[in-house]
Amino acid sequence: MEKNGKFAVIGGGSWATAIVKMLCVNQDSIGWYMRNSDAVGYINIQKHNPNYLSSVTFDTDKLKLTDDINVAVREADILIFAVPSAFLGSELKKLNVGIQEKIIFSAIKGIVPESGMIVGKHFNTEYGVPFENIGVITGPCHAEEVALERLSYLTIACADTEKAEYVAENLRSQYINTRVTEDIIGAEYAAMLKNIYAIAAGIAHGLRYGDNFQAVLMSNAIREMKRFTKRIHKIDRNINNSAYLGDLLVTGYSTFSRNRMFGNMIGKGYTVKSAQMEMSMVAEGYYAAKSAYEIKSKFKKKARTPIIDAVYAILYEGKNAKQVFLELTEELD
Amino acid sequence: MEKNGKFAVIGGGSWATAIVKMLCVNQDSIGWYMRNSDAVGYINIQKHNPNYLSSVTFDTDKLKLTDDINVAVREADILIFAVPSAFLGSELKKLNVGIQEKIIFSAIKGIVPESGMIVGKHFNTEYGVPFENIGVITGPCHAEEVALERLSYLTIACADTEKAEYVAENLRSQYINTRVTEDIIGAEYAAMLKNIYAIAAGIAHGLRYGDNFQAVLMSNAIREMKRFTKRIHKIDRNINNSAYLGDLLVTGYSTFSRNRMFGNMIGKGYTVKSAQMEMSMVAEGYYAAKSAYEIKSKFKKKARTPIIDAVYAILYEGKNAKQVFLELTEELD
Repeated sequence: MEKNGKFAVIGGGSWATAIVKMLCVNQDSIGWYMRNSDAVGYINIQKHNPNYLSSVTFDTDKLKLTDDINVAVREADILIFAVPSAFLGSELKKLNVGIQEKIIFSAIKGIVPESGMIVGKHFNTEYGVPFENIGVITGPCHAEEVALERLSYLTIACADTEKAEYVAENLRSQYINTRVTEDIIGAEYAAMLKNIYAIAAGIAHGLRYGDNFQAVLMSNAIREMKRFTKRIHKIDRNINNSAYLGDLLVTGYSTFSRNRMFGNMIGKGYTVKSAQMEMSMVAEGYYAAKSAYEIKSKFKKKARTPIIDAVYAILYEGKNAKQVFLELTEELD
Repeated sequence: MEKNGKFAVIGGGSWATAIVKMLCVNQDSIGWYMRNSDAVGYINIQKHNPNYLSSVTFDTDKLKLTDDINVAVREADILIFAVPSAFLGSELKKLNVGIQEKIIFSAIKGIVPESGMIVGKHFNTEYGVPFENIGVITGPCHAEEVALERLSYLTIACADTEKAEYVAENLRSQYINTRVTEDIIGAEYAAMLKNIYAIAAGIAHGLRYGDNFQAVLMSNAIREMKRFTKRIHKIDRNINNSAYLGDLLVTGYSTFSRNRMFGNMIGKGYTVKSAQMEMSMVAEGYYAAKSAYEIKSKFKKKARTPIIDAVYAILYEGKNAKQVFLELTEELD
């Protein structure tokens, strides 16, 4: 089956739109579900997504757009989920088609708020999808640069490397390089942790720390990520590979990152609530901070995670950002 | 002697000015040599450097400014060199005072063009300064942020950690954190290599590669730096410490870096000569690329250094930047 497995992309945002664009290079028929039925109608006629990456024109003959998730899921072998983690639960509730037999790739960077699990584990535990059918697509990759066809590198992780290879083949193009790894757990946790570090970078910026400190923060963040992922799943992993360090950098240095923006507002003195209201959405890193803090609290062998601890203290314990960062700066080196 | 060793700073540029500012917090009398005698006179009256970090006001009672390098060297125990590596040779030629007995700290990031050596080795080989009296001051640290008193972290490296500790103590303040290491060789090579990677980042930007590729480039650069420094001096070094990764990031992500600017012009199609003329100076990384390429060519056990090789091919072999980077992108992952 794998050699002509059919894809469906679940989600209508910028990352989903970018993934559909990548698949269009290699596939003739791609399922694409988004809950916004107006957008479905619009794309079919105007050949671009009205809300995200609107410069990308689609050959709509290749697209099977639908606002019914069950239609998209039923007709596909490989489902690529690219909805914000906060909406995954409500989307999955709509399913009346089984997904145990499907291959599931997550392009979601975060924790499922309802279960506090990374996405792969959520699919395994809650939906009985076996681990060898679960994979992850990770960056470093801003969707906006895919729209511009600027060279980007994706890492495709799956315990079953044949499946990773098949997905990689279908995402690859003149402007997309791919790399395959078995380290799905490391890739997922790294993608989740980097959003916490992007919040930290934003807080630092909001508090008027400069580029010198930002470099120190990122240098400490990657070491913390290494300790954390080592506790979760100890394998011979080079944390400086693009899927880990590269992904951290593209987010931590991006002024467009929602997580960084959220942190920036906190650093400038907004309360968590008002920052969230102002952004009219919840940054992925907000959930990730809670989850990472809880996970690390349960580590049998303790690991130093001063940045996670600091972000958690500010977001969940109401601690003063300025004071917490003053203490954090003494923990970093 | 060390507990009240006297400092002199050699250099009148922004990094020298920042170091004098740091020392002023802890010392009552600091020698400061710069070749520009007008600037010496100006600072004595106006209490700030007219050409660099002019917002920084000095308590000139603490400064022993001179345009005679021999005066500064004679009266000091610890010399901090902060001149561009291209000018070090001509400055040292002016010396008629011996420096064998002095403690020499280099805040120079680069290779001495005349000898092709890193600065510490140059002092040892050409001036007979014993290695235990040679140290390095390294970032991540833009001088401009020191002027603004934004929190920065310095790493002070010396084989004799007591000397490193003494220098660290005298640089430390409310806005400067310090860290001491014995890895002077790693610190010097890292500081030199990062300038090559900053040129590479600039070339990529000039060729219109985006942030996704920049993250991949930096992720590959730090792995390359690890391989390179391991061949030069194999010790148990965490390449993700601030002195290595942090220093790479602050330069590689800085749009103000002269190396990045130089690379950017090359990427945009300037010839090496015209880029240098346009900048009216030579970026440190230009010499570093040649030196690093020659050093790595002599490694007994070969190491993959695709980024150094690419920059060398463009700067010294007249290869076309676009074509070289097209090939480089296939080497990266």
